Amino acid sequence: MKMTVAQLQTHVYADKEKNIDVLAPLFEKAVAEGADLICLPEMFNCPYETPNFPIYAEKDGGETWTKLSDLAKQFHVYLSAGSVPEVDEEGKVYNTAYVFDREGNQIAKHRKVHLFDIDVKGGQCFRESDTLTAGNSVTVFDTEFGRMGLCICFDCRFVEIARQMSIRGAQVILVPAAFNMTTGPAHWDIMHRGRAVDNQVFMIGTSPARDLSASYHAWGNSIVVNPWGTVLSHMDEKEGMAITTIDLDEVASIREQLPIMKTRRDDM
Amino acid sequence: MKMTVAQLQTHVYADKEKNIDVLAPLFEKAVAEGADLICLPEMFNCPYETPNFPIYAEKDGGETWTKLSDLAKQFHVYLSAGSVPEVDEEGKVYNTAYVFDREGNQIAKHRKVHLFDIDVKGGQCFRESDTLTAGNSVTVFDTEFGRMGLCICFDCRFVEIARQMSIRGAQVILVPAAFNMTTGPAHWDIMHRGRAVDNQVFMIGTSPARDLSASYHAWGNSIVVNPWGTVLSHMDEKEGMAITTIDLDEVASIREQLPIMKTRRDDM
Repeated sequence: MKMTVAQLQTHVYADKEKNIDVLAPLFEKAVAEGADLICLPEMFNCPYETPNFPIYAEKDGGETWTKLSDLAKQFHVYLSAGSVPEVDEEGKVYNTAYVFDREGNQIAKHRKVHLFDIDVKGGQCFRESDTLTAGNSVTVFDTEFGRMGLCICFDCRFVEIARQMSIRGAQVILVPAAFNMTTGPAHWDIMHRGRAVDNQVFMIGTSPARDLSASYHAWGNSIVVNPWGTVLSHMDEKEGMAITTIDLDEVASIREQLPIMKTRRDDM
Repeated sequence: MKMTVAQLQTHVYADKEKNIDVLAPLFEKAVAEGADLICLPEMFNCPYETPNFPIYAEKDGGETWTKLSDLAKQFHVYLSAGSVPEVDEEGKVYNTAYVFDREGNQIAKHRKVHLFDIDVKGGQCFRESDTLTAGNSVTVFDTEFGRMGLCICFDCRFVEIARQMSIRGAQVILVPAAFNMTTGPAHWDIMHRGRAVDNQVFMIGTSPARDLSASYHAWGNSIVVNPWGTVLSHMDEKEGMAITTIDLDEVASIREQLPIMKTRRDDM
């Protein structure tokens, strides 16, 4: 079964609403090119700085959530709505990814489990945990194309998460993400290719465009990898859209030829 | 702390003894270049064909084992003696990797856990399970350079094995291996680089040289990768030796800067 994916490598504006307002014409173009699933980047509506997360955060079902749901319904398309800051009843803030179906129903919600706290000498420093709370769940969901998994950026660094999603039946793993100028060149491709080969799944990593006027310089390079580890699509760092058609039958075919997922052992 | 590794990407002769007899001058050269650890390839004393394994197999402490122990002692060097076919008291045959210390004492033994049974359309087919029995253990061992892990080729395809070795303290993972002309170009580099980045360890993969007159065409390309995923040494397909000095302090340093191993969660 084939599925066409449109990745929107967007510019992140400081004006929260503008990040939503720019989407309709992009969705129109994506759907005209056959998109079944549209993917947005991590924190696509909030410049990636820890003080911004509580300020930009909304509750489930808030204005941003409603507009995203409406867009999915209007364009009758699956929407992996990147991630946005979410605040709960207690005031805790999360890095949260929603997925909506073609009718605008929320079919998945993932709160980033592994907060991004790094301190590379001479490179990138960042502490999401200054303002964010971690989620506690591995997330899979069902679509007309089969089961998919969903995690956010640093989550995907941890082999356990992708493995758990795959064991639970995910054939495609969606990763809204924002690597940077230190970790991007070193690890972005290898992480997506490695997870694809190890779990024999499609990996779809979607990043914001690079904005050198922002404080955090995203790597960009949104990517699609098949279960053999072959890169099917690889953007550069600029704003844009990538359309990629994947054949989900490759998952079963590759798992049959190279039996990793069915011969793995958890008895040791 | 620094350690110098010599990888011997050897030709595999049908004459079992000859595969041992050629080693002494190579060890002499390796030690002269400062080698602390010498690594041999998977099934370095047995052409890689399933019918050969029972024919070439010996018991623990047999002639091949004794010669390998003697070589380690003679050259006062750690020896990861690739792998060899081993037969147990019941007549079961294993793909077994031994490690000897500088005094010739066996300090590790790993029986391949995941037998290599693949059937790639238009590519490589092989069924180790026709003549081999699988091992059941994850293997780590201690040296003057710290703790290391040991697995064989297809074992390393499974994220669980490298993760378990790393959790148990391995800072270096040794992989005697023999990828082929299908899986080599597709997955050899990415497997070693991925395991290195995911577990923040050094990966040392040692292959036989390619022999197009053999029935199984090994990929060669013996490799050393640091915990950041950087390739420190990469051979071609030909017979030869690679000398690489690694700095084990990089493990702690990288784990501090990019806290994956210390923030991983197993509660989901």
